[in-house]
Amino acid sequence: MQYPEPIARLIDSYLKLPGIGEKTATRLAFFTIDMQEEDVINFSHSLVDAKKNLHYCSICGNITENDPCIICADKQRDRTKVIVVEQPKDVMSLERMREYHGLYHVLHGVLSPMEGKGPEDINITSLVKRLQKNSELTEVIIATNATPEGEATAMYISRLIKPAKIKVTRLAHGLAVGSDIEYADEMTLFKAIEGRQEI
Amino acid sequence: MQYPEPIARLIDSYLKLPGIGEKTATRLAFFTIDMQEEDVINFSHSLVDAKKNLHYCSICGNITENDPCIICADKQRDRTKVIVVEQPKDVMSLERMREYHGLYHVLHGVLSPMEGKGPEDINITSLVKRLQKNSELTEVIIATNATPEGEATAMYISRLIKPAKIKVTRLAHGLAVGSDIEYADEMTLFKAIEGRQEI
Repeated sequence: MQYPEPIARLIDSYLKLPGIGEKTATRLAFFTIDMQEEDVINFSHSLVDAKKNLHYCSICGNITENDPCIICADKQRDRTKVIVVEQPKDVMSLERMREYHGLYHVLHGVLSPMEGKGPEDINITSLVKRLQKNSELTEVIIATNATPEGEATAMYISRLIKPAKIKVTRLAHGLAVGSDIEYADEMTLFKAIEGRQEI
Repeated sequence: MQYPEPIARLIDSYLKLPGIGEKTATRLAFFTIDMQEEDVINFSHSLVDAKKNLHYCSICGNITENDPCIICADKQRDRTKVIVVEQPKDVMSLERMREYHGLYHVLHGVLSPMEGKGPEDINITSLVKRLQKNSELTEVIIATNATPEGEATAMYISRLIKPAKIKVTRLAHGLAVGSDIEYADEMTLFKAIEGRQEI
């Protein structure tokens, strides 16, 4: 005996999401049937709305309802600095800090020879074009993740941009605030010592 | 800075699902935006379809498109036996075995004094009524989970039904097929010894 067709189709839909296997998909599908009808309808609409109404900003690649995005369109922001990040989520994380008022550039990925991802597969060309057009720009801050791919991407971009006499910086590596030295891994400790500062 | 409204709403929707926290909901929402439009629309429809087209069978409580469900409606099935389970999922699991051809009864929960769930909160009254109406019935097999609540529910139902001179049985507890004694817990081993059979 198979599941009734509507629930089998819903399980298939949940299965398409990342990190969700057969068991979880089934649990979510049965949960959906027990949800309030209003919540299910809202969920259904929010899926389609998010897909249809969100686009990538044609300037920075961030996710946005309007093009250009509110950050690129904001005349108040400091146009001398651009932070380069991997994903739109990273922009949100940095914005939550409320201390940075410059611009962003979202790569939508990293260089990864293992997965066959080269410079043409991520948003690098548009970054270079953007730097050429924007004469106010003095500093590019690379904020790719502290992974081997993130580091390689940072190096690649830095070499690409440096000839244009733009300052290229990288976020500091070191101990997370509030963390214990006891639990820090060797690479982090090494970077923390390497980047030590006078107090 | 907040997320654009459509994605914030989608994150809220994902957050309503069980076992999904803020981080996973955000990841799923961003994943949704990168999905094929067709897949998102299918997902959206399958949610509403499952909610609107599925009901609980008025006889056994199983999930179904048509009432009564195909098992209750199937004249070929053995009407002398009813397996009592906690959830519709359990019916599917037992049906996958392809060895049982009797009927089912879905409780939609278990007795749980800790959560304030009494006999009136689960599908017990309808089970008793069903037994009274169906004179062919000779055996009720209780297949609630092997948890304290499942056991208590099994005992409760058994006491309720026995006076009607219907045979009440419980699924055997013991070692799972293919499992190692080394890794079995004490309760399982105890049940396995208690239920030992001559070979």
